[in-house]
Amino acid sequence: MSEHFDDKPLQTFRAVSPGMERLLNKPFKVLDHGFIRVVDYMGDDAAVVQAARVSYGRGTKQTSQDRGLINYLMRHFHTTPFEMAEIKIHVKLPIFVARQWIRHRTASVNEYSARYSVLDREFYIPSRDAIAAQSTNNRQGRAEILSEAEARTVLDILRSDAERNYDHYLDLLNTDEHGSPIDASRSGLSRELARINLSLNYYTQWYWKTNLHNFMNFLRLRADKHAQYEIRAYADILMNVLEQWVPLTHAAFREHRLDGVQLSATALAVVRRMIGGEKVTEASSGLTKREWDDLVSVLESKP
Amino acid sequence: MSEHFDDKPLQTFRAVSPGMERLLNKPFKVLDHGFIRVVDYMGDDAAVVQAARVSYGRGTKQTSQDRGLINYLMRHFHTTPFEMAEIKIHVKLPIFVARQWIRHRTASVNEYSARYSVLDREFYIPSRDAIAAQSTNNRQGRAEILSEAEARTVLDILRSDAERNYDHYLDLLNTDEHGSPIDASRSGLSRELARINLSLNYYTQWYWKTNLHNFMNFLRLRADKHAQYEIRAYADILMNVLEQWVPLTHAAFREHRLDGVQLSATALAVVRRMIGGEKVTEASSGLTKREWDDLVSVLESKP
Amino acid sequence: MSEHFDDKPLQTFRAVSPGMERLLNKPFKVLDHGFIRVVDYMGDDAAVVQAARVSYGRGTKQTSQDRGLINYLMRHFHTTPFEMAEIKIHVKLPIFVARQWIRHRTASVNEYSARYSVLDREFYIPSRDAIAAQSTNNRQGRAEILSEAEARTVLDILRSDAERNYDHYLDLLNTDEHGSPIDASRSGLSRELARINLSLNYYTQWYWKTNLHNFMNFLRLRADKHAQYEIRAYADILMNVLEQWVPLTHAAFREHRLDGVQLSATALAVVRRMIGGEKVTEASSGLTKREWDDLVSVLESKP
Amino acid sequence: MSEHFDDKPLQTFRAVSPGMERLLNKPFKVLDHGFIRVVDYMGDDAAVVQAARVSYGRGTKQTSQDRGLINYLMRHFHTTPFEMAEIKIHVKLPIFVARQWIRHRTASVNEYSARYSVLDREFYIPSRDAIAAQSTNNRQGRAEILSEAEARTVLDILRSDAERNYDHYLDLLNTDEHGSPIDASRSGLSRELARINLSLNYYTQWYWKTNLHNFMNFLRLRADKHAQYEIRAYADILMNVLEQWVPLTHAAFREHRLDGVQLSATALAVVRRMIGGEKVTEASSGLTKREWDDLVSVLESKP
Repeated sequence: MSEHFDDKPLQTFRAVSPGMERLLNKPFKVLDHGFIRVVDYMGDDAAVVQAARVSYGRGTKQTSQDRGLINYLMRHFHTTPFEMAEIKIHVKLPIFVARQWIRHRTASVNEYSARYSVLDREFYIPSRDAIAAQSTNNRQGRAEILSEAEARTVLDILRSDAERNYDHYLDLLNTDEHGSPIDASRSGLSRELARINLSLNYYTQWYWKTNLHNFMNFLRLRADKHAQYEIRAYADILMNVLEQWVPLTHAAFREHRLDGVQLSATALAVVRRMIGGEKVTEASSGLTKREWDDLVSVLESKP
Repeated sequence: MSEHFDDKPLQTFRAVSPGMERLLNKPFKVLDHGFIRVVDYMGDDAAVVQAARVSYGRGTKQTSQDRGLINYLMRHFHTTPFEMAEIKIHVKLPIFVARQWIRHRTASVNEYSARYSVLDREFYIPSRDAIAAQSTNNRQGRAEILSEAEARTVLDILRSDAERNYDHYLDLLNTDEHGSPIDASRSGLSRELARINLSLNYYTQWYWKTNLHNFMNFLRLRADKHAQYEIRAYADILMNVLEQWVPLTHAAFREHRLDGVQLSATALAVVRRMIGGEKVTEASSGLTKREWDDLVSVLESKP
Repeated sequence: MSEHFDDKPLQTFRAVSPGMERLLNKPFKVLDHGFIRVVDYMGDDAAVVQAARVSYGRGTKQTSQDRGLINYLMRHFHTTPFEMAEIKIHVKLPIFVARQWIRHRTASVNEYSARYSVLDREFYIPSRDAIAAQSTNNRQGRAEILSEAEARTVLDILRSDAERNYDHYLDLLNTDEHGSPIDASRSGLSRELARINLSLNYYTQWYWKTNLHNFMNFLRLRADKHAQYEIRAYADILMNVLEQWVPLTHAAFREHRLDGVQLSATALAVVRRMIGGEKVTEASSGLTKREWDDLVSVLESKP
Repeated sequence: MSEHFDDKPLQTFRAVSPGMERLLNKPFKVLDHGFIRVVDYMGDDAAVVQAARVSYGRGTKQTSQDRGLINYLMRHFHTTPFEMAEIKIHVKLPIFVARQWIRHRTASVNEYSARYSVLDREFYIPSRDAIAAQSTNNRQGRAEILSEAEARTVLDILRSDAERNYDHYLDLLNTDEHGSPIDASRSGLSRELARINLSLNYYTQWYWKTNLHNFMNFLRLRADKHAQYEIRAYADILMNVLEQWVPLTHAAFREHRLDGVQLSATALAVVRRMIGGEKVTEASSGLTKREWDDLVSVLESKP
């Protein structure tokens, strides 16, 4: 899948995002063997504004007013103008990350087919500081980093199992690393079956295309601290892509989604009482312990 | 909604479709007051090929092989690579056409809001040769053109009702054609209510964005002879856009969709008997009359 | 489109919602000629819980725990379990309402075809207290009710134009109210063209089917006070349907969506300062005037 | 995830499919450890007809006419009425099958989370007659069954690697088969990381819900002879579910989709010449070798 990229730009009458042009076609490393590469995009902040103006007939073309309109759209969940820009990326990622990623259905995907071609000997091994214990208070999270000794065992197991699985994968295919038959008297198992011997940390790759609105939905969930670290590593790169591509939309997304909060009716009532000077306790709040803890943490945390 | 388009091209590292660049931002007239204008696009034939190669690892970069791969994808309904290109158009169209168009749900839309702004006095009046009688054998089609006298009555009715509805629309709004109040002592009805007095031939406009796969689905249904003439007028322009944008995909679309046929199991059995030299009749075919007629017409029609 | 409904229940091994069974097939009147009728449904609160348990393996089957889990899902935007229930309704509604409704793309729709059949002489005329002036501070809203004199003019215009448009519709079709030709010497215009003479307040009808998650999205937007009154009239009925169908989900939806609020990063900072005892003003808040007014109204309003 | 199913039916006023009621909640075994179980459904053949009648106002309520209407809809790709019925199934399947399955995006899914819970020691081992060589003429298919000796090696590798991977999975988690810690002095790796050591033949499970239209799209692709054997095993069960649920739709689906063919423009021209008595050869056909072979096979095969 080597590809040739012309280093000479072409001319276009389309909207151009200067920040995105600088990122285009450059692979950004993620985890140990993964990458993200922006392949193509359509539209910029102005495309969002332009589409909104069809609906609302608003304003002028000055940036300060574009910023205001984009904030307004984000704040009021007027999402359709954000569907008017599009991004296409090439991603190399471990299969277990791909399984989380694909749950976002509002995107187009073309994945490398291991029925069709042989996968490379590339698998994910967590770095030392990602090897963490099971969290006890969050059933789907990690807690503290494992001790040196335990971490070494983990790495040994992951690495040796992945290597052995791949050796056997080639055995099953009756193929050596260069694609030549190992034993001319054997047929070799079909690729679509042999691959089932590989583990979930093997790398796959795909083209993934989505619109700006769904891109932000993806980021809201996957750049979140509750997301698994490995997919967050991809989302963090993509947050930077968002900022370079559509700076006004990125700022509004931070202000109204990522750094904003959702208060329930009961939590809002508590906030009103607090502002009125009342000393509200968990017991008098009407919230569950978990909701109360969340509210306290939201109200106390400094930006 | 006047817009300024720079006539100077910008530089980009993205894929560029030379045919599409020539169409960009130019309004193409449709019906009496409508238009289609391509606002933006992403990708070209090579983008389809490139995405397919991620999956299948196929071939080289020569055009003849790109053509073969695109034909293969189309023939086998491998639709995801065609989702990798995108188009955005600005359309002005009568509301009854918009109502048919919007049934294609896999697209993004921003429509001019008549809650927010006042609609213009622009309505669709069919041209002389579009004024046809109800078909008797096709419950949702047209038959022969109406006589001169009857057509004149039709035009008179459509025109005078549309004009009167608009006069009353302004009356309801208490606004003259220049946006000034007619009678300073009146409040004027809200825009969202006043508009309900307009008829379905009034023009609206929207931005519409979809991917190449769904774009072809739209064309397959709306460039078809069973589609209502007025929406076909838009689809015909868009067929030309398709050809300029992605010539290889357009050719494959013609070959395998538009000019191809779907045969049922029973129709296929009939074809086999015919090729074997048997004289098959409607009675011996096992088909309903309608299916038989369709099959005969498919087999007899000359390209 | 008359339909016969058996009044005798059948036996099923599926989940049954007692509240929904009582609503089934009963038309609820909306506006002057519209209705909503629940045709079918799939699942109940327990179906949401059951799907969530596949993912999270949570809890037991007691209602108190079901309530907690449903609240948890709603609060954390874990939306997929809510996609596991489904509703199908039959709606009769004015075309301008249908145009707003159809913007929700994640639903299935079968609409009555005016290409195929003749529409009835049924159009929407707002009731006296819905005839309101254009709002001046909200570009897409209504303000105070019109005066008696102005309202009478509005009603006269709407009614007489709708009647005339329908008379002419029949003229164009060359059909009287009973479906007989008016003038045997004329062909009559095709139905697909004649209908364009009707105004946007004419009634259409459709079957509409969506899942519980998208149903709530619809309600969040359309039962909102910023929605146009006429579509809100439908949403209000559907809010009641939601409550009867899935009472636990309905309560969580109220608590975490309808009656909750979204605070931006800046608004949250203001709230923190207020709780700390600081007297924050619009000027010192960092919010725009509109955002400040919204925040004040959220913090002051009593439940 | 044990579940209790009441064996006593409840009463409903909804449409009931007698065939589907008989299947409900019964697990059908697939592969070595998988199953499919229908959890819920909405609608039947009559629901399709009923929705179509809203659009077309067609016909009466007799079965012969329902059959005709369903055939008509299928033949003309009028797909929306088929969206009016819905199915929800519980599936246990190997992860590599799940990865193919999930590519169908128009469905709702809740999958068992291995971040949240520990997976069971259950993995797929192909049966003797599924262990086949790589096809040489179809890059993503299987050819003849492997020899006894080679097959034995394959089974040994797959089984011992899967067992070892699972042993190590428990080691990483520091958990024995009963959920107790192996070594009290160790923390154990978090579940979300430990699972990456499992191979693609491990079983997962999910709830999957889709409408009848998309269900048939799934079957068209996955019950096809080009689909991988393991997903076809699931699709075959679901073909039977389709037949029991909506027998008229199933028959039309066979007639117009599964057992019908799509002819390209060029292939159609060849068929016309053949019927005209001409002896067409590959060289004179205008088709590629592959297209010619496909056409010959379609025209020669006996039903």
